[in-house]
Amino acid sequence: MKIISLLGASGSVGTQTIDIIREHPAEFTLGAFSVGKNIDFARKLIVEFKPELVSVQDYSDCHTLKAEFPQTKFSFGSEGLIEVAVYDKSDILVNAVLGSVGLHPTLQAIECGKVIAIANKETLVTAGHLVMEAAKKKNVRLLPIDSEHSAIFQALQGEKDKNIERLILTASGGSFRDRTRGELENVTIQDALNHPNWSMGAKITIDSATMMNKGLEVIEAHWLFHMPYEKIDVLLHKESIIHSMVEFHDSSIIAQLGTPDMRVPIQYALTYPDRLPLASANRLNLASIGKLHFQEMDVERFRCLQFAFMAGKTGGTMPTVLNAANETAVAAFLEGKIRFLQIEDLIEQALSTHQTIDHPSLTMIEEVDKETRQFVHSLL
Amino acid sequence: MKIISLLGASGSVGTQTIDIIREHPAEFTLGAFSVGKNIDFARKLIVEFKPELVSVQDYSDCHTLKAEFPQTKFSFGSEGLIEVAVYDKSDILVNAVLGSVGLHPTLQAIECGKVIAIANKETLVTAGHLVMEAAKKKNVRLLPIDSEHSAIFQALQGEKDKNIERLILTASGGSFRDRTRGELENVTIQDALNHPNWSMGAKITIDSATMMNKGLEVIEAHWLFHMPYEKIDVLLHKESIIHSMVEFHDSSIIAQLGTPDMRVPIQYALTYPDRLPLASANRLNLASIGKLHFQEMDVERFRCLQFAFMAGKTGGTMPTVLNAANETAVAAFLEGKIRFLQIEDLIEQALSTHQTIDHPSLTMIEEVDKETRQFVHSLL
Repeated sequence: MKIISLLGASGSVGTQTIDIIREHPAEFTLGAFSVGKNIDFARKLIVEFKPELVSVQDYSDCHTLKAEFPQTKFSFGSEGLIEVAVYDKSDILVNAVLGSVGLHPTLQAIECGKVIAIANKETLVTAGHLVMEAAKKKNVRLLPIDSEHSAIFQALQGEKDKNIERLILTASGGSFRDRTRGELENVTIQDALNHPNWSMGAKITIDSATMMNKGLEVIEAHWLFHMPYEKIDVLLHKESIIHSMVEFHDSSIIAQLGTPDMRVPIQYALTYPDRLPLASANRLNLASIGKLHFQEMDVERFRCLQFAFMAGKTGGTMPTVLNAANETAVAAFLEGKIRFLQIEDLIEQALSTHQTIDHPSLTMIEEVDKETRQFVHSLL
Repeated sequence: MKIISLLGASGSVGTQTIDIIREHPAEFTLGAFSVGKNIDFARKLIVEFKPELVSVQDYSDCHTLKAEFPQTKFSFGSEGLIEVAVYDKSDILVNAVLGSVGLHPTLQAIECGKVIAIANKETLVTAGHLVMEAAKKKNVRLLPIDSEHSAIFQALQGEKDKNIERLILTASGGSFRDRTRGELENVTIQDALNHPNWSMGAKITIDSATMMNKGLEVIEAHWLFHMPYEKIDVLLHKESIIHSMVEFHDSSIIAQLGTPDMRVPIQYALTYPDRLPLASANRLNLASIGKLHFQEMDVERFRCLQFAFMAGKTGGTMPTVLNAANETAVAAFLEGKIRFLQIEDLIEQALSTHQTIDHPSLTMIEEVDKETRQFVHSLL
């Protein structure tokens, strides 16, 4: 029986993590979790799983729940996230919060030697060098949950890193893959939220439409698999059936395939290095799909991917700026304050204004993150 | 430095094995080999690699070569094959002879504890239970060279057998994949030898056209991976880019991909569990290929595949009959004695006439093999 602590229980990865726990009651239990403001959801989880520790965003909600569930320990805010992250009885932390807010809990969990299943890619983008250094020092394993990184991780089982020629991340192309840049001028929030393959949260769906999601994944892959950017390629594959691939230097390619179902990589991270049945999964039937399509990535069309490669290769605080500018711009788009293509413009301005700082400390990263958000806000 | 002994040096897999040895002179050397009647080819190999032991088919050729190369040890016939198979200095035996003639050398090599890279699928089809029992007893590893089985073997690295849901062998469909049964009535030998993707020997190219090759591979997969026939599927995939796949019970599929190049699986068998660069290989470019196609296998259209599943599930001597009847019928077709669709008819008659014998000994298998060949000859 593995005890799981879960950051971001009410999000898309969070709820699917709970589905997995529910499907395997003899294997997994939920020991601690955090939610933001979805208190009703927290109530249901407390009744169903009787976790020892629960964290919410606001003090008032914490106070309310304490009165209702005297057997449960409650916490709140950023302290609460850390308490869930380092929950002492858990065997594995699933970090499924959104954005760079996931960084502190990740670093704290690493300090405590927790195995971390990481869906929070912004943490690795904004401070990959700190996270990987700490993980190495504490000999902590980071297990990817993103379908692309899980695919690469699965493809690498039984293989040696020295034999890798390149990683090939597949990209569906997102909601707007069939539109020209001209047609993107006046797309709406609803258009952007309509992802063709994956059911995901709003932020990541917008990131998919701008291709920034793939850019963040490239940086994430760089850190998770210690791979130089020159050895990471992106390939358009609109069906999202091949989730990613590894090419070895003998030209052999190992790929992981499946229907687009986040529960598969989530469960793999929880069961690794073993697997468990997932009876409720839709099995892939390639004959009924008939065709898989592949296309060169057009970096002129998808400028955010260019930005991400540039920021990644520059290193230092540049990826922090990329991420903070993106989070701020996407939030502004979702609030209706800017048009879709302005997301790119804002990120570009933030990147071109920034003087990168090499080997930044956590404090410096937090400073740059904050300044970037203010800078982007000043342009709105 | 690995010393290699090679059965069937002048065939398609044999020459490509030699290409691999040639490309990695610091890693591999050819210690012993056999050829049939291609003595000029043997001469070239002797000059280039200076092997200690060489076997040819006929005594007269053996005699001739002895006079020319006094430093080399020569042998001939079926005894010669066994001498090469058990060559005491070799680290690995590549068995690339054609047909059930490969059985004895395989069993002898297993007795001597040799690692065997096996391209000779007929050996496993005709006497899989004996080969696998012997390999288990001697703790000998059989490494697949067939591209499909190598794909499955690569996909299984780092995985547990208990988690396998099914093996998915891909099939190009062979030379006649786009023809109806009616159109097969009058196809010529030349038509049949024109395989769309792979450059291979004549027998295996005909087997691909009848789909018997996939049938033999199903039986081979059954033995190599200890997999019941119910868990082996065949999928039409005309590009031969995905070489085969493994589905696990969490619905995740691991596949091995590449351009159709037999040197990749051959080299993998020689380097396993490591990999070496293969600079001369054509790298796969999925974007330039654009589309991969998949289609349900039509067992009414490809009757030989049905025969193979039936023979495999029946077990005992039935697969021996399948293989012997097929070898005889294909040889008759290549000699212009029968039409293409008669291959199927002859195999069907041989199978329906045979009363299977369970757990046959090697002697029984050899007896049934011989009787089946005589039976098919009597029908010509």
